[in-house]
Amino acid sequence: MSALLKTPTDESTSQKGSAQLAIDTIRTLSMDAVLKAHSGHVGAPLGLAPTAYALWTEFMRYDPSAPDWPNRDRFVLSVGHGSMLLYSVLHLAGVEEIDAHGKKTGQPAVSLDDIKQFRQLSSKTPGHPEYRMTTGVETTTGPLGQGCGNSVGMALAERWLAARYNKPDAPLFDHDVFVLCGDGDMMEGVASEAASMAGHLKLSNLCWIYDNNKVSIEGFTNLTFSDDVAERFRAYGWKTLHVADGNDLGAIREALTEFRATDDRPTLIVVDTVIGYGLQKQQGTASAHGEAFDADDVKGAKRFYGWPEDQSFLVPDGVAEAFHAAVSERGRPLRETWEADFARYAKAYPELAAQIEAMRAGRLPEGWDKALPSFEPDAKGVASRDAGGKVLNAIAETVPYLVGGSADLAPSNKTKLGFADAGSFGPDNYAGRNLHFGIREHAMGAIANGMALSYVRSYASTFLVFSDYMRAPVRLSAIMEIPVVWVFTHDSIGVGEDGPTHQPIEHLANLRAIPGLNTIRPCDANETVEAWRVAMEQTHEPTALVLSRQPLPTLDRTKYAPASGLKRGGYVLAGDPNETPDVILIGTGSEIALCIETYESLRAEGIKARVVSLPSWELYEKQDQAYRDSVLPPEIMARVVVEQAGSMGWDRYVGAKGAKVTMSTFGASAPLAKLQQKFGFTAEAVLAKAKEQIAARKG
Amino acid sequence: MSALLKTPTDESTSQKGSAQLAIDTIRTLSMDAVLKAHSGHVGAPLGLAPTAYALWTEFMRYDPSAPDWPNRDRFVLSVGHGSMLLYSVLHLAGVEEIDAHGKKTGQPAVSLDDIKQFRQLSSKTPGHPEYRMTTGVETTTGPLGQGCGNSVGMALAERWLAARYNKPDAPLFDHDVFVLCGDGDMMEGVASEAASMAGHLKLSNLCWIYDNNKVSIEGFTNLTFSDDVAERFRAYGWKTLHVADGNDLGAIREALTEFRATDDRPTLIVVDTVIGYGLQKQQGTASAHGEAFDADDVKGAKRFYGWPEDQSFLVPDGVAEAFHAAVSERGRPLRETWEADFARYAKAYPELAAQIEAMRAGRLPEGWDKALPSFEPDAKGVASRDAGGKVLNAIAETVPYLVGGSADLAPSNKTKLGFADAGSFGPDNYAGRNLHFGIREHAMGAIANGMALSYVRSYASTFLVFSDYMRAPVRLSAIMEIPVVWVFTHDSIGVGEDGPTHQPIEHLANLRAIPGLNTIRPCDANETVEAWRVAMEQTHEPTALVLSRQPLPTLDRTKYAPASGLKRGGYVLAGDPNETPDVILIGTGSEIALCIETYESLRAEGIKARVVSLPSWELYEKQDQAYRDSVLPPEIMARVVVEQAGSMGWDRYVGAKGAKVTMSTFGASAPLAKLQQKFGFTAEAVLAKAKEQIAARKG
Repeated sequence: MSALLKTPTDESTSQKGSAQLAIDTIRTLSMDAVLKAHSGHVGAPLGLAPTAYALWTEFMRYDPSAPDWPNRDRFVLSVGHGSMLLYSVLHLAGVEEIDAHGKKTGQPAVSLDDIKQFRQLSSKTPGHPEYRMTTGVETTTGPLGQGCGNSVGMALAERWLAARYNKPDAPLFDHDVFVLCGDGDMMEGVASEAASMAGHLKLSNLCWIYDNNKVSIEGFTNLTFSDDVAERFRAYGWKTLHVADGNDLGAIREALTEFRATDDRPTLIVVDTVIGYGLQKQQGTASAHGEAFDADDVKGAKRFYGWPEDQSFLVPDGVAEAFHAAVSERGRPLRETWEADFARYAKAYPELAAQIEAMRAGRLPEGWDKALPSFEPDAKGVASRDAGGKVLNAIAETVPYLVGGSADLAPSNKTKLGFADAGSFGPDNYAGRNLHFGIREHAMGAIANGMALSYVRSYASTFLVFSDYMRAPVRLSAIMEIPVVWVFTHDSIGVGEDGPTHQPIEHLANLRAIPGLNTIRPCDANETVEAWRVAMEQTHEPTALVLSRQPLPTLDRTKYAPASGLKRGGYVLAGDPNETPDVILIGTGSEIALCIETYESLRAEGIKARVVSLPSWELYEKQDQAYRDSVLPPEIMARVVVEQAGSMGWDRYVGAKGAKVTMSTFGASAPLAKLQQKFGFTAEAVLAKAKEQIAARKG
Repeated sequence: MSALLKTPTDESTSQKGSAQLAIDTIRTLSMDAVLKAHSGHVGAPLGLAPTAYALWTEFMRYDPSAPDWPNRDRFVLSVGHGSMLLYSVLHLAGVEEIDAHGKKTGQPAVSLDDIKQFRQLSSKTPGHPEYRMTTGVETTTGPLGQGCGNSVGMALAERWLAARYNKPDAPLFDHDVFVLCGDGDMMEGVASEAASMAGHLKLSNLCWIYDNNKVSIEGFTNLTFSDDVAERFRAYGWKTLHVADGNDLGAIREALTEFRATDDRPTLIVVDTVIGYGLQKQQGTASAHGEAFDADDVKGAKRFYGWPEDQSFLVPDGVAEAFHAAVSERGRPLRETWEADFARYAKAYPELAAQIEAMRAGRLPEGWDKALPSFEPDAKGVASRDAGGKVLNAIAETVPYLVGGSADLAPSNKTKLGFADAGSFGPDNYAGRNLHFGIREHAMGAIANGMALSYVRSYASTFLVFSDYMRAPVRLSAIMEIPVVWVFTHDSIGVGEDGPTHQPIEHLANLRAIPGLNTIRPCDANETVEAWRVAMEQTHEPTALVLSRQPLPTLDRTKYAPASGLKRGGYVLAGDPNETPDVILIGTGSEIALCIETYESLRAEGIKARVVSLPSWELYEKQDQAYRDSVLPPEIMARVVVEQAGSMGWDRYVGAKGAKVTMSTFGASAPLAKLQQKFGFTAEAVLAKAKEQIAARKG
């Protein structure tokens, strides 16, 4: 072992020596894994290993034997491409694996064999850290800036949980959120938005550690980036600290200590590092970013570290044990105290404790849907955004941990919780349940994901057209299988005068194309109730609720089928389900009214029409073939779909020869009635198409 | 007129009185238009009217009779919802209308009648300013932050044009770009990214004027926003100035003068305003943001301004004339001098002048495609990103005004221009043609749009999965009908080890769903040549080029159909086009190789297979029915599509019963070959599907 201690640092005590050993173990494991996989990134692992070491062994309040302890500090690797840093740490810390049911498997979260399987099929060590794939991975990162955004959601959730649940004798929630981030995070707008919001909210439990390695893929960052990052963050309201040498454990320790002592704002620690530290040819250059080194380079780096150059995946005796002990000795007692606190808490505040348990388990409270409204038939009707607001409020009153808001459009999205103790979340009221995300859709998405990862049921809202600004987090909610509710209102040319920039056309298709996301576009107030019900009942799938700006008639459900059909995605809304129809009118959302009007005209003429409400393709596709054939009998191909959106994908339900009353261009600025005329969304036009379909199929 | 001069300011000279008259004309026109339309926003028009007045009458170098003069200063209303401000200014300035062919129509850009048609169908005054709809509208704005992003592209283009084309005796390009922006722009990440880039690039010709009205839709901005905006912009490298009273013309003038004197960085002018200034009940509150006032409120505001309260759409005598004269007297001589300069320039530098003329006309130079490469058959092949890089370089050498870059992925996207005088665009080299956008995809998109609006042919590149970060500008390029080339590489699970966060699934469908965007996914190097050819030949349609990371075999085009078939979107690649096939294999991009392999197996068994390469749905749909029926004969429904992407939309081409060898989930982290196995992209799987199809259609 003595050779191993000949590190290039001037540290001499055995305690310090063991620190350096652990640091160099992270580095060499990372290099060996990337070399074996012929793929991956060592920039962050080599540069940030000392920071990660100090953070985990000296600061993180984390029990490796209970990585699902709710009050653990969170560690977010926003530089997800440096995943080997995280895997190495999880390995050295001896984090224990927990399965999908919350049970221990008796396996380590990341074994040495797992590390040898880096980036291989079905391994626990995929290219970027994936939530649910590896115990200890708090969020899926890789798309830059997302981890930073998530972290704000996590820190905000902690503040909210503390404000709502802590008691003087049981401070159940008081954890911190640490983020390792890089130049990409500093440049991506989503992280800027998130930082601005964190500063406003004075989230003093949030610490971003910026790996200032001065290099990105195209070269030195000064090729394109001249921000004074620290000044920028001070302008956001953050404390900023500087570590001039990323290998200086003392300075790292000092900065983290100062973060812990800061109680009025988030902290950014700028750590100057050398990218690829140790790789003699690559360090400090862009070629250190990706895999641009060979076995000889790795040997050279190992020599530089004073490491046996011919050994791969070496974890020297005692290194993992010492690392684990350091984390565990601090974390385990804290967790055990917490468990005792919680037991007492559960006796003193059984209702609150039950809420916490339900949150952890992803369950809804008993009777959560008891106050769901039901809407009377009404020809004038109500906008589904308005109905949605009522439903949301009814649910939120019985689901105390449903928290969310809008990107500065709450009065339009109708997502404000209006009941007595809802309140506005802000630096002076962390108990508030109405979040004001500001005009920051992208961060809103990432923050809502972070909240969901911290047990809170989150929802987030904007205009459907601006889902474009937050595609990445919506996608990530589906990848991570977290049941965020995305509320998108103003869902078509129904937006009217605001014109094409505000009228979604392709957005419904775009949402429907995301695997694992349920997109639901209800046709009236009662379908809106059912849509929210489905959304809330999900434990692993996010939902996009697509709601109208304009009023939609509330259908008479004694005359037409009940709205509960929505849960099957599509159902026969009008017409006898046992009758063989002459023509099928298919619609979603606001266009169901047109379908019904056409249906009544056809019926008056003795034509056997059917209306199928198809608010959710995804839910419909989960039904068995028999059910689907009963709704859309394969032999009846006289079909018309009516939807104020692009036609993409509708061939699936109407066939290539079916009629599509849909949009083929962008919209226009005008009152809605004029737009409906212009783009052919009139009862006459739909009636004509229906008759053409009948004639064509007979001919 | 004397009553009109009783304004609430203490200005007394008739000159100042006329300023106030013009300012209040902007305000009252805007209120009257919004009131008549029952829709729209007066916040910016009321608060910023003095700023707009000072800017246009005293600073803008703009000839109302030649709004297409290339060296005009640009005015960008990033707060697009305040469109009436822009329409009022265009009306008062007497800007003359130019039609789609660049000819004067003899009409004003915006007449008083047009203003009365605010937000009505087909009017020249749509809800948000729309490029091509109204002369004088430099870009389509509304989605917040986009105008700011565009402005950086415009300012950058000006620097580039100046560096490339100016001569000591002919400074053809030296214009400025002015932006009116709001709280939304300050909060949106895209604007943060753009500001960071503008600061790095030291774009001293760029001036953002921030309407600091302290109010957004949900309430006071301090509900969610605590940035020290000026400090933040100084951290980006901007000069910052402050106007404490948005009604103080002298202070506005001073700030604009200081901007003009600043030659080393962009300028942010923070103008403190009162939102809804004049509306007694609403001013300074969130209710002033949208339409929340009635006729009485407007009367009250008019009384406050000292305006005849019963007159609507009043432009007092002399106001438009004086406004026009002020703009014109400065702008017209400058424009005329420029024309003379250009005439001399054209004689001295005919080649450069021809380039400028071509740029203005949206034309390509003669022989632009003469150096396009052609690739020899090669079983190992070349990644289409690599082929794309070669093609791009060949085109760029002959199209000197093709300028673009990547969001820090140039070495991966292969978009770097490598020839001698290409160079890197930066603060020390405005003549460079390689842009380094940094890790700022969203701003990259908005900047590329701004460049295209300033005559430069722009391209921008990132991984396909990160098109999610820039959906809004891609959409806007289609709405504006500007031929930006979006280069998206790493186009499928072919990404391999980077895993699901980096593997696009829904993105092809998402691009195909955007009206007016041509999405092209070429199958080999020679189709990549044709794809770039199509992209360059567009004058009104943007193109998304979707390219592979992994090598694709270069097909032997003597054996299979020529790649020129790409221009029709889809074509019979393999099999006799006159034969009736037993089964049709349809593919795009990297999956064509699998289709060909399957085709050869089927042929070996005596089965009449056909392969259709369908790289662009949009180009294919533009072909006539006869052609389409010849490629995909309607009677042959034994069809298999193979595409490493979600199946959304493919029913259109293979029918509900056709086989779809596509993705139904997210991808995974593993070497590509393992992923192909896992997800069923193997020759055996495709062969089996083809045979099933043949059997099913016969049965």
